[in-house]
Parts: sequence; structure tokens; C-alpha cells
Amino acid sequence: MRIGVLGGGQLGRMLALAGLPMGLEFVFIDPAKDAPMESIGRHICANYDDETALDELASRADIVTYEFENILLSSVDYLSRKVPVVPSRKALEISQERLFEKSFLKKIGIPVGQFCPIDSLDDIENAARVTGLPAVLKTRRFGYDGKGQRVVATIDELTTAVREMISVPLILEKKIDFKREMSMMVVRNLSGETAYYPLVQNEHRRGILYTSAAPAPNIESLAGIAEEYAGKLLTALGYAGLLTIEFFETDEGLLVNEFAPRVHNSGHWTIEGAVTSQFENHLRAILDYPLGSTDLTGYSKMINLVGALPSFGEIAKFSDTHIHYYGKSPKPSRKVGHITVRGNDFNTVEKKADEIIRLIEVVY
Amino acid sequence: MRIGVLGGGQLGRMLALAGLPMGLEFVFIDPAKDAPMESIGRHICANYDDETALDELASRADIVTYEFENILLSSVDYLSRKVPVVPSRKALEISQERLFEKSFLKKIGIPVGQFCPIDSLDDIENAARVTGLPAVLKTRRFGYDGKGQRVVATIDELTTAVREMISVPLILEKKIDFKREMSMMVVRNLSGETAYYPLVQNEHRRGILYTSAAPAPNIESLAGIAEEYAGKLLTALGYAGLLTIEFFETDEGLLVNEFAPRVHNSGHWTIEGAVTSQFENHLRAILDYPLGSTDLTGYSKMINLVGALPSFGEIAKFSDTHIHYYGKSPKPSRKVGHITVRGNDFNTVEKKADEIIRLIEVVY
Repeated sequence: MRIGVLGGGQLGRMLALAGLPMGLEFVFIDPAKDAPMESIGRHICANYDDETALDELASRADIVTYEFENILLSSVDYLSRKVPVVPSRKALEISQERLFEKSFLKKIGIPVGQFCPIDSLDDIENAARVTGLPAVLKTRRFGYDGKGQRVVATIDELTTAVREMISVPLILEKKIDFKREMSMMVVRNLSGETAYYPLVQNEHRRGILYTSAAPAPNIESLAGIAEEYAGKLLTALGYAGLLTIEFFETDEGLLVNEFAPRVHNSGHWTIEGAVTSQFENHLRAILDYPLGSTDLTGYSKMINLVGALPSFGEIAKFSDTHIHYYGKSPKPSRKVGHITVRGNDFNTVEKKADEIIRLIEVVY
Repeated sequence: MRIGVLGGGQLGRMLALAGLPMGLEFVFIDPAKDAPMESIGRHICANYDDETALDELASRADIVTYEFENILLSSVDYLSRKVPVVPSRKALEISQERLFEKSFLKKIGIPVGQFCPIDSLDDIENAARVTGLPAVLKTRRFGYDGKGQRVVATIDELTTAVREMISVPLILEKKIDFKREMSMMVVRNLSGETAYYPLVQNEHRRGILYTSAAPAPNIESLAGIAEEYAGKLLTALGYAGLLTIEFFETDEGLLVNEFAPRVHNSGHWTIEGAVTSQFENHLRAILDYPLGSTDLTGYSKMINLVGALPSFGEIAKFSDTHIHYYGKSPKPSRKVGHITVRGNDFNTVEKKADEIIRLIEVVY
């Protein structure tokens, strides 16, 4: 739906800000050339390594940040000569490559599952000995939403998989027998002020995040150690910005799976569920403002909309339930929006989320 | 500050949505032509009676709404032949003209202060008899933020004021000796579902709204009657959308001052202070979706930023305090932003708001 508005002042602007997450589009009439609705964003349509585009970005921006980590370091280096880029190259470089990432985490004393690089067929036996089987064979770079991964149960399966994937550097990781998956958003500004959101509990389906519950239940014994790992990582990286750490809870305690130097799908609940959203706190951090409170406003459960969109009206009838459309056309396995259910009572939120999950279609 | 972002997907889009209220501007690189950041709004730069612009708006919009009420009815009529305009012409017509508005309210049984039209110098004595003195002489149309108003204490002062202002139709209104000023946002969707936000207490300075506290304290005896008046008004207008009613609390009870058929400055606190903001609920109402909950998330106090902007960092150090910049350059008496303080305890919110009020500069 497209909404026309007579007047593009602050009220029109905030109408649009409230309506955009609802998937609406806006068109304004306003006699003023510099009306508040004007300032949302300019789109430079280009590849990330296009130097003309990078020049334009640098000339139009006071500071540059990023929303995903698979960006060429050469682009960041190019930009960095002209404009500050935050978070830093170091966090990006490490998080882009699973072997660097796991080795770095291990080096600074954060527990990770067993892993071993595979650069040729000769490495297979040793790698399987290090990780044990079953294990997960992964490309070291450019994986997301479970892409570039293969679970292998035997040496034969591993050998077949390596033969197929060996055109790029690989890593074998122990298949973790986890009790649950969790993540934590942490944020640190340029001056070093740090804040922690609570651990959230994540459920994936077909490698794609499906739900996040905040706070994760029964984390009394885990919260302290998770924050300790997060603090270590922020310090070791000299990090500024919001950073997301993914954990496995196992019988032996928390293991870190990976980290992302950016705002994260498992933190979308913070828009309504925390006093300050992950998005605002990322901006505060890179601009070196005091951080906003990471206190919760209640219990939240986020449900991803994957491959299909429910109608707004269908979801709007649930109270304290917040729908976000991304303006993308639905395709199988594509994240096209999310819903956050919030409330003051854990059971009410869970029950409402279950009802919604039964209602919505998911297409993989 | 201008933020550059590599990637214009949903994360970049939500970064921008969180950052725009902070007064930041965004520029993106993204290879996709239809990236989610793209959809914010198109600006047709024209006057409200420009038929070419209205044609373009009608052709680009499925439904048209407005953010202020001083729009020519002829423009609304022109648009209405091509595209639905909500709220309806009737509410707009009545609220544009103080005599129509007061007469309409009185006719449907809602108490208002004494008033009398003044069309010529001959009407002065009768009008003063009806309202008593002191009174407020106002233009019937196009008043806002205290403009087009004059307080008069004697027949001589009234006569002088009428002589100066008589080129347009006038109304004399009793100067209400109020205990406090309040307002209420109410919302009704096209199907007739209705929801009420609580009464908020407003403080004006030099005719411009300065603060709104939600909920207004000690409203137990007033809430029922305010909702009754609001319900009457919505029904009489056959209204869809969000509507704001301004009240005076007097020794004789609540009087209605005026109403606005739109989202309102005294409802900005709903962005953080209510489960659903006035902006989202206006959109839900005109699109005939189920309304969002108007429950509060705590106590809120909104402070307008008038004529000057504090730095983000200066305000960001207060917890659960939310700054909104409108992207306008500061000029005396111009509303350029607002701050909402939220919390679970009334006294804490009031104290924090007082500290902020002492800190910020206001320029009239």
C-alpha cells in the first residue's frame, strides 16, 4: 500500500517512520524544498568494490559502517584512506574467515569446539582425528544461513565432501551436541564504555534463524561467563560498535560458535524489547555517544518471516505484537520480515508466539 | 552527521530508521536496484493547491491522509474524486474554523467555554456580554501555536483589537480560568473499532506546547467523562483515523478547547511510552486494520525542543531518554525536535525531565 500525505513536516516524517516497518510506502506534497521527510537516505547503486561508488560514499559520509561482514578488505582499506570506517578492519578480517576466527577465539582463552583446517585431501585423516566424527565441513569464507556447510559422519563422507568443495579453503569443525543455541549482543563505544544485552535463545530451521526469545530462560549460571567472554573479545579486538556472539550451551558449559561485527537478526527484538535498540546503540557506539540502556522492557519473542509474508491485519489483531516488513519480494528461504511479540509475562508471550507460528506460512 | 553504510538490506534500513530520529543522515552502497532502504518516500515539491502535484499524489497513492488541518477543502475535494482521503472532509471542515468547531461541539452536547462570532464592530458589545471579560479574540481560521490571538481585558482593548484584525472573520472566546490543560488521543478505524490513550497533561509556553506528561496525574474522576466526550465526537463526525482533543480542567469540570483531526505534538510520547504509537495507530485506522494496544509502557514526559537543539551526547547520557530531531534548522519559536523521558516511576521521570529542562536552551 502507498500512503499519500499532504505535508512533509515532522509529523509526516514520523508517520513514515512508523509506517515503513509496516511495509507501507509514502509520497508527500510539501512546498518546502528541505522538508523533514527528505533526509532518509540516498542510494548509490553499485558493487562494493566499485571505486567510483566508494569515492562517492566517502565524500557523502562522515563515518562509514557496515551491515554484513562479507565485504572485501580492499574496499575497506580504500575507504579508510578517506573516511573513518567503524567497526575496525581487524574485527572484519577475523570474522570473515572461520579459521582465523576460531584460532583467535582460542588464543584469547574463549572455548570453541575442536576444529582443523583442510587445505588438501592429505589433511582429511588428521582433521577427522582432531574433531572426531560426525563433524561439519565448512568453507572458511562467505558462509551464511547454513550455506557452504556439510555434515559428515564417516571418513568416506568427509572425503567425498572435501573432493567437491576443495576449490576453496575448508575447515572441519566438531559437530557440537548442544543443549541450545544462544547469542548475545554487546556494544562498546569508541571511548570504551561497554553494555551487554542479555543472552537470547535461538532456534534455527534449515540453517536459518527462526525464533529468538529474550531473555533466554534459566541463564543465571551462564550470564556471567558469557559477559566475561564478550568482554575479552571486545578488548582483544579493540572494538567499537555492536557485536554479536553466538554460543552453544553444552554439558561442558558455553562454547562460542562465531561472532559477527554488526547488528544481528537475533537482536531485532531489541527494537521493542529493550530500552535502546541494537541499531541505535550501534550508531551511538561508532559516533562515541554515551550508550543507551540495554535494560529490557519485558519478555520478547522474535519470529522470522521466511519466504512468505502474512497480511498485516492477520497479525495486527494480536496485542503488543510488532510486525516488520523489509520491502523485499518473498522467495523461498529469503528473510522478508519479522514479528516481535512482547509482554510482561513469559508464558503469555510464548503462547501468543505459538499461535502466530501456527498461523504464518514459511517457505524454504 | 552523515553515516555511510555498505549494504542497503533490512539491517541498513533499520539502522536508518533508528538513526533518523537521532538527526543522522544515511548514504548506502548496494548492488540491488530495489534495496529495502529505497522505499522511504518520494517528495513532490509543490503547493497544496497545485493540481499537477495533486494529480501526481493521487496517481502514486492508494489512500491520502494529512498531517495538519489548514488545507484547502478544494484540494481535498479535488483529490477525493481520484483517491480516498481519510480522515473525512467533514472533520477537516469543522476543525478549520473555530466558530464551526465550537458550535458543533456545543450542539452534540460537549461543554465548551462561552463564545460569540464577531463579523463587524457592531458585534462587540454583544460578544463581550456573552463571553464576559477578560476574553480572547481569535481569527476563526489558520491559527496555531498561539498565533492570531489577542487577550483583551476591557471593551476598549477589544474594540482596538477588532479594528486591527477585522479583515478576517473573528470569534471572541471566554478566557478560561483553567487549573490545567490536558489532551487525549483517540483513534477509530474505518470499521468503527475505537481505542483511547489516557489523558495527558500539557504545559504551554508563549502559546507553544512545552511539555506533555503521560498519563496526567490524578485523572481518576476525569478519564470517564473525557472518553465519553471523545466517543460522542468520533460518532458525530463518523471519524476514521487518530483524533486529538484538547481540554481545560476547570472548577466546573472538563471543557473542550478544540480538536485536531490528526496526530498531535502532545502524543509524541506514544512512540516510546505506549505499546502502539499514535503514528502507527493512525495508519492502522485509515487502512482499517485492527488497532494496536494503547496501553502505556510506563510514565512518560515529552519535552519540546524549541528554537535550539541540544547535542545528542548531552542528552544521551540520561537513561531511557529518547531524542528526536526533525532535520530542521533552528529558528526562534520553531519546533525542531523533542525528547521523551520514560520510566517505571513517576517521580524519577519528573526529576530526570526537570534536569533536562534546566540543561536545554529554548529560543522564542
